[in-house]
Amino acid sequence: MTEAVYNWKDRGYLATYINKSGSFASVRIYPPGSVLVDLQSYGAEEKNEDHHLLNELEERMRELFQNNITRVKRLPAITRGGAIDRYWPTADGRLVEYDIDNIVYDEESPYQNIKILHSKQFGNILILNGDVNLAESDLAYTQAIMGSGKEDFSGKEVLILGGGDGGILYEMVKLKPKMVTMVEIDQMVIDGCKKYMRKTCGDVLDSLQGNCYQVLVEDCIPVLKRYAKDGQTFDYVINDLTAVPISTSPEEDSTWEFLRLILDLSMKVLKRDGKYYTQGNCVNLTEALALYEEQLNRLCCPVEFSKETVCIPSYMELWVFYTIWKTGL
Amino acid sequence: MTEAVYNWKDRGYLATYINKSGSFASVRIYPPGSVLVDLQSYGAEEKNEDHHLLNELEERMRELFQNNITRVKRLPAITRGGAIDRYWPTADGRLVEYDIDNIVYDEESPYQNIKILHSKQFGNILILNGDVNLAESDLAYTQAIMGSGKEDFSGKEVLILGGGDGGILYEMVKLKPKMVTMVEIDQMVIDGCKKYMRKTCGDVLDSLQGNCYQVLVEDCIPVLKRYAKDGQTFDYVINDLTAVPISTSPEEDSTWEFLRLILDLSMKVLKRDGKYYTQGNCVNLTEALALYEEQLNRLCCPVEFSKETVCIPSYMELWVFYTIWKTGL
Repeated sequence: MTEAVYNWKDRGYLATYINKSGSFASVRIYPPGSVLVDLQSYGAEEKNEDHHLLNELEERMRELFQNNITRVKRLPAITRGGAIDRYWPTADGRLVEYDIDNIVYDEESPYQNIKILHSKQFGNILILNGDVNLAESDLAYTQAIMGSGKEDFSGKEVLILGGGDGGILYEMVKLKPKMVTMVEIDQMVIDGCKKYMRKTCGDVLDSLQGNCYQVLVEDCIPVLKRYAKDGQTFDYVINDLTAVPISTSPEEDSTWEFLRLILDLSMKVLKRDGKYYTQGNCVNLTEALALYEEQLNRLCCPVEFSKETVCIPSYMELWVFYTIWKTGL
Repeated sequence: MTEAVYNWKDRGYLATYINKSGSFASVRIYPPGSVLVDLQSYGAEEKNEDHHLLNELEERMRELFQNNITRVKRLPAITRGGAIDRYWPTADGRLVEYDIDNIVYDEESPYQNIKILHSKQFGNILILNGDVNLAESDLAYTQAIMGSGKEDFSGKEVLILGGGDGGILYEMVKLKPKMVTMVEIDQMVIDGCKKYMRKTCGDVLDSLQGNCYQVLVEDCIPVLKRYAKDGQTFDYVINDLTAVPISTSPEEDSTWEFLRLILDLSMKVLKRDGKYYTQGNCVNLTEALALYEEQLNRLCCPVEFSKETVCIPSYMELWVFYTIWKTGL
């Protein structure tokens, strides 16, 4: 074991310990009395040993300080560099560890990185470009973005933007709509989900069309423009695009302008008394939510909105959903 | 800046960097190609600087490796040694960070450490001996441990074991029971919750008795024994004790024996067609759940049970709840 001590003077001390097997420890002592111990090991086999070592250390510290320790906190070990990555921070930037035990699908599509990872408690989780999108446990998300059971969709025309996991489509077709059109840009999301997210999408993605639905594998912007030009309208538009939506033809300068373009086009294809549903953001991101609501005041037609905060199991944070409708027409 | 390099030979390299202001970095290079960089700073003012430094480092690494990097992952910084502790690991031992911004209550009672911490999204959270018990966001917990809305409590006799946060009592009295008796050992939990968990308990803890309820500040074991002896029975017994219950007179050898004692006494005071509700554990702790279910086969009277898995917002893990009833009498 190699030991080195560094004196920061009024900012405390640092000691480092290196052993021959690839393990490494540091002890920092900061005024007015914090002792931070980090133990870093190479390989999983040393985990139990580390635990034992930390127990001994804690005991020895209590003796040395004659039990004058006000707080001891030991954090679970962080595993890095392995095949399975268990850390998928929340939208508000908190470090959270998932119980992921298997990589089910991991592909680069022309649009994004698509991962489907297996969580022991949440089932398979779809992660797009590092963002947790939806887990098989998350029926609450699908219900919230469909108006939380307050709408009667029977006989109605519904347009879904995005929604490649098939969750909304699967729940919607059960409710006997007249026709559901889903516009998803990424065939590889559909391919992954129809195979590995079946608790979410059932068999609805096995075919790109059914009795009362069709799936268009296209960028939704030109599709919306076509519908607007042709005067085709819908009772419901459900925007289930990713937080920063992907387009093959980003003609707008900023993300906000792009989001406004989608909203404006959606309002054009929405019937007079139609409703537009979308996810907002993590409830803690109050600034982003306020900016979004600001955009709603800058659309081509006047709208009103309501919002609801819902707990989505795999998100580990509360999520805001919006209902938007046209007014004063 | 002081630099030191250590060669682990077939297990890689370690380099440490110490600067004069109390910051400390380590770079470990492990075969077959993992580079782990840790940056540790003293004081919050350096957080932005760290971010900038890591951006530069990442850019430089990409240049050096000519973009032959398959994966880059940066974890949110961990803050240690501060007044506010944001890390409260889950029951299944995962590291999760909470959005805690304030310490509302922090006391040592004769029985346990009681903390009430404010979370931006979950409201105030009650933490007993380091275990997240209940947040103001967690009506789902209270509903689940009351049978998920499937029971009619009007005119019924209800016994609550524990439940010091007042959540069950508050929801129960709304349902017009004949009488609710709550037995909570720790007056200081009641005191903290009636002041700081009012979204959970309303005004129900302001007085220890009301029209249809009474709160006994006592160890539940002697109370249950008294009721059993006197032949007093209840339609519902709701066990809301902590995972490892506290007693002033632990006469049993192991936790499991103690849990069985509570169950046996509860069955004695439960009416023939009564129901017993309790929380189980995190859904991932399958061994602990199986052991609990094993205890149910070893009670003084035969019982059956059903279970339900529920998402409790502040837990960041799915939780199992049990309903138990007597059979074959």
